[in-house]
Amino acid sequence: MTPRLAASSLGGDRVEGRRAVTELLTAGRRRVRTVWVASERSDDLAEIADNATRRGIQVREVTRQELDDISSTEVPQGVVADADPIEPAGVDEMLAVPSAFLVALDGVTDPQNLGAVLRAAETAGATGIVLPRHRAAHLTPAAVKAAAGAIEYLPIAAVAGIPAVIIQAARADVWTIGLDADGDVPIDDLTIADRPLMLVLGAEGRGLSRLARERCDVVARIPMYGHVASLNVGAAAAITCATIARLRTATL
Amino acid sequence: MTPRLAASSLGGDRVEGRRAVTELLTAGRRRVRTVWVASERSDDLAEIADNATRRGIQVREVTRQELDDISSTEVPQGVVADADPIEPAGVDEMLAVPSAFLVALDGVTDPQNLGAVLRAAETAGATGIVLPRHRAAHLTPAAVKAAAGAIEYLPIAAVAGIPAVIIQAARADVWTIGLDADGDVPIDDLTIADRPLMLVLGAEGRGLSRLARERCDVVARIPMYGHVASLNVGAAAAITCATIARLRTATL
Repeated sequence: MTPRLAASSLGGDRVEGRRAVTELLTAGRRRVRTVWVASERSDDLAEIADNATRRGIQVREVTRQELDDISSTEVPQGVVADADPIEPAGVDEMLAVPSAFLVALDGVTDPQNLGAVLRAAETAGATGIVLPRHRAAHLTPAAVKAAAGAIEYLPIAAVAGIPAVIIQAARADVWTIGLDADGDVPIDDLTIADRPLMLVLGAEGRGLSRLARERCDVVARIPMYGHVASLNVGAAAAITCATIARLRTATL
Repeated sequence: MTPRLAASSLGGDRVEGRRAVTELLTAGRRRVRTVWVASERSDDLAEIADNATRRGIQVREVTRQELDDISSTEVPQGVVADADPIEPAGVDEMLAVPSAFLVALDGVTDPQNLGAVLRAAETAGATGIVLPRHRAAHLTPAAVKAAAGAIEYLPIAAVAGIPAVIIQAARADVWTIGLDADGDVPIDDLTIADRPLMLVLGAEGRGLSRLARERCDVVARIPMYGHVASLNVGAAAAITCATIARLRTATL
């Protein structure tokens, strides 16, 4: 259920789904070995195959059945690629980015949720992601597909523990904002949104760990207006990252 | 892949997962026949079982293996319930609610995405959901689990087509806001957010249908700050519903 990260690799070498493969090719930041495309081609798939061929990548046309056999996700959408794994970025470099907007995931174990957070963070202009090396989801094919290409652009670091990185952030003058249902400050009132910051998201169900919560400069909450008391971590990340992006733009 | 809705039912009779079953019991709006609980009980499961027993509902303790055999979702989290299906609500009644905040889904086919939209809409204070009767996801066990209890509180209507409901909304003085990557207005600038409104979300991938787009009063977009050009429909719904909730609160 929760495969561990090898010290040297984040995974990400298997890329499935149209958006994810398209961004892999477009970004062109890592070597792509093979792209498999289903032979009953749509326009979308033909475009991906042409794109890969133009870049000198080997394209193999296979039957839908063969593609399903190759793929690890349930709906590969007719295309699967093998590439070099994602190279981990350094936390120090991430914290030193002048207008850092980092997202740290403290124990998210579901690959779909990890992918959703990465996609939402990237579209909001996040500058980096911090993942724990152990007891957390890493860049499995399901996570890569859900990320829809975000991993091609977002620097991602793998660390021993999120609470230690929160201390590192403080030393680097990066503000840390924990997100919790019982947070003190509504996200819309985050006055430090335009500073260098790291958003810390807790695990599904359990939420923010006690230690992470205690160490964050601010613990924020998403205003809730219904009966259901919580959001999925992907939705919570999407709302909070979009809010930070809005507050940053407003103060420009 | 896209089971059809029967004319008279939305589904929702099978409820799996801790949050979904807890809200089913707490809301108490429909008859629950049986709750199955895994015998290796945690505190959470014991609480759900006690809650059900107090309400006079039959609780059956089964092994984890038996529970997995009964359940339709991959991770039922130790609890599964059978209940009366969700009764569809009427569109006219929904449109007549004074401060209506409706969300219409024009062709979302993935049950997880449907569930995510329902959860995000409910937490933002939406007053109702409009689903197409055909060619769309309905309340399957996966959708119900992802909705995390939202279906116990949100009125849900099943209609022949979303474009027709957009016309009905105009007649009822309810503003319609389509969401699209190429929308004219950033969601944060929606001046009509405090009016009675219906948000219209398009299908995964294809987005808003041409007809729905043409008929909406406003087509709005989520500001994007990264390389990845789109959000998952669940994340897009979460951001937009939270923004509407914020704009409504600000004008109170």
